[in-house]
Amino acid sequence: MPVSCDTSVTERLLRDDQQGVTTLTLNTPKRFNALSEQMLEALEAALADIAHDEQVRCVVLAANGKAFCAGHDLKQMRTNPDKAYHQALFARCSQVMQAIVHCPVPVIAKVQGVATAAGCQLVASCDLAVAAQSARFAVSGINVGLFCSTPAVALSRNVPRKRAMEMLLTGEFISATQAAEWGLINRVAEDAALDDAVQALTESICAKSAVAVRTGKAMFARQLAMPLDEAYAFAGETMACNMQTLDAIEGIDAFIDKRPPRWQHR
Amino acid sequence: MPVSCDTSVTERLLRDDQQGVTTLTLNTPKRFNALSEQMLEALEAALADIAHDEQVRCVVLAANGKAFCAGHDLKQMRTNPDKAYHQALFARCSQVMQAIVHCPVPVIAKVQGVATAAGCQLVASCDLAVAAQSARFAVSGINVGLFCSTPAVALSRNVPRKRAMEMLLTGEFISATQAAEWGLINRVAEDAALDDAVQALTESICAKSAVAVRTGKAMFARQLAMPLDEAYAFAGETMACNMQTLDAIEGIDAFIDKRPPRWQHR
Amino acid sequence: MPVSCDTSVTERLLRDDQQGVTTLTLNTPKRFNALSEQMLEALEAALADIAHDEQVRCVVLAANGKAFCAGHDLKQMRTNPDKAYHQALFARCSQVMQAIVHCPVPVIAKVQGVATAAGCQLVASCDLAVAAQSARFAVSGINVGLFCSTPAVALSRNVPRKRAMEMLLTGEFISATQAAEWGLINRVAEDAALDDAVQALTESICAKSAVAVRTGKAMFARQLAMPLDEAYAFAGETMACNMQTLDAIEGIDAFIDKRPPRWQHR
Repeated sequence: MPVSCDTSVTERLLRDDQQGVTTLTLNTPKRFNALSEQMLEALEAALADIAHDEQVRCVVLAANGKAFCAGHDLKQMRTNPDKAYHQALFARCSQVMQAIVHCPVPVIAKVQGVATAAGCQLVASCDLAVAAQSARFAVSGINVGLFCSTPAVALSRNVPRKRAMEMLLTGEFISATQAAEWGLINRVAEDAALDDAVQALTESICAKSAVAVRTGKAMFARQLAMPLDEAYAFAGETMACNMQTLDAIEGIDAFIDKRPPRWQHR
Repeated sequence: MPVSCDTSVTERLLRDDQQGVTTLTLNTPKRFNALSEQMLEALEAALADIAHDEQVRCVVLAANGKAFCAGHDLKQMRTNPDKAYHQALFARCSQVMQAIVHCPVPVIAKVQGVATAAGCQLVASCDLAVAAQSARFAVSGINVGLFCSTPAVALSRNVPRKRAMEMLLTGEFISATQAAEWGLINRVAEDAALDDAVQALTESICAKSAVAVRTGKAMFARQLAMPLDEAYAFAGETMACNMQTLDAIEGIDAFIDKRPPRWQHR
Repeated sequence: MPVSCDTSVTERLLRDDQQGVTTLTLNTPKRFNALSEQMLEALEAALADIAHDEQVRCVVLAANGKAFCAGHDLKQMRTNPDKAYHQALFARCSQVMQAIVHCPVPVIAKVQGVATAAGCQLVASCDLAVAAQSARFAVSGINVGLFCSTPAVALSRNVPRKRAMEMLLTGEFISATQAAEWGLINRVAEDAALDDAVQALTESICAKSAVAVRTGKAMFARQLAMPLDEAYAFAGETMACNMQTLDAIEGIDAFIDKRPPRWQHR
């Protein structure tokens, strides 16, 4: 039974832990799960907790309601008109997105409904993403005179640049199928099969060695930002350390013996 | 009625301004719109003018004749055999390509016929590109013993690297459909519908806030070259400034009020 | 008739030179062509020889047996349990991969069967890749508790990041068709037509100017790692030098005269 991260305030972000899979569910469906100050604060706190929780094997970022996430809370932004407020807001939002990138375990977006602006950025920031066939994606800030600059950072690191520019300049929606073809998401599922499709990924990840998965998550984004020779030096050292772990020894022995491995931490 | 940028010399590059859409048309169809010294000079001058023209909302780069652009003018290059000439020529061409990247408004390539070598580079350098179904693309310098090194810079920032290497090493043409699948262009239109397809994009862009579009164009390429944390710091500041503009305030208010926005500059 | 690079030890890596096409064939099919110390040493030596061999126009990296390459030799890695051994092993493997990237001529992977872990990395490291329809690709170290960190370096520079993460975290195979759609390989051939498909590429490359091909190979990866303005400065200088070669002069003259070019070195 899901419990809120922040019951003293609201149940805006639900956390559910099941056998290593932590599901964070955006739960302000009437507000299209907008990334209000409060929602960002809740996400920040939840991701900070997860970063220190050795029991977590992977995170699913989900949402309740017809929208996955409609981006920033425009009413709240207009109620607070000063620039310092907006600087702090976008800085916090950027911190949340980077907390997903730096989360020690893989984060999987589970997308139903629309993911727009910073909601689309959430999807782009996750390691993996699965969407319902009916889900749609847009970076639609341009429609209200506010170019999706921070979403562009994540989007342009997921899809080819002309695709990103088209989405950013037109604000138009793309389908889940299009999003999968362009690399914004991994898989599309029939709406009724979205749970199963996400579960296939979480089960696959949970069946792996926890230390190997964490090693990979930690090294992937870092090496991608490095020149080739540095990336190889870093990855080689990472892999040599990984080889010293009990799980790698067990995994290789099991492979040689043609038996299933028994990992240290399940 | 289009008028030349440079009527005292030739009508090699036509400029037409219509309701914020500036169309630059390569107009030496008998020479396959080759990027001669003179054509590069005309493009450089036109892009410099546009950079200071607040009336321009977006630029369409088009061409007259059977070819979009066949790249450098090989006869002129052979007539001027010294290295200093070629250094200056490639430097100027690279300046033109970067002037497209740094143009304050989006530049859309409208491609009919063939786009080869530096002609393909022109397409790659634009923010968006639409091509007729019959258009074809190649970086064919390798066929004349001259590897398309400067076109490779733009091409390899548009399409995956093995695609780019295949085109560069074989010199073979790809179809418009292939170009769209690989990310070199955004959309393919029936030949007779090319005008309409480009117009759909220009109308979409012109319906947006001018300041928001310019903000986005200016930030996109810059942030893409930055590490993630710097990109977010830059994008967050950009977005906070954007929020202070009258158009963002109007856009958000209109969105909340469920009415169309009225931008400052139409 | 292929002869081994290293007949005094084994025939583990065969080298065959035919009219400018050097084929290196991984030849330990019973060990799935694993990248043992000895295989890496053989590849390193062969690539070093090729780097100084002006007769070579392009390299085909092929394999005998049911597997293209199954990655590292896990038994050998377990027999040598100390970290220093593994550091040296991954460093050597990384050197081999970078020797492919820095090889003065294009390297084409010819993939049959499975290419897993560092075997998939080999494919990703090549300039071009052609695979049989039945070939399959995975970065499967995660299945044995050893995240494919060094393969991730090459893979993530070939395919969009969510694709790479999916392969790395799940360890699942993708088909040749999928690999082509994602950009890991260039072309898929019917199994019986793999030789022909590779030959089409090698013939295309060998029909070009040798100096132009070498110029392009040397500049491509370097420019891709540079900021745009530096990349253009470097590419422009490279192209001006290329224009001074006899082949570029001949190629352009032949083009103007509408006759086939006669390159200096065939």
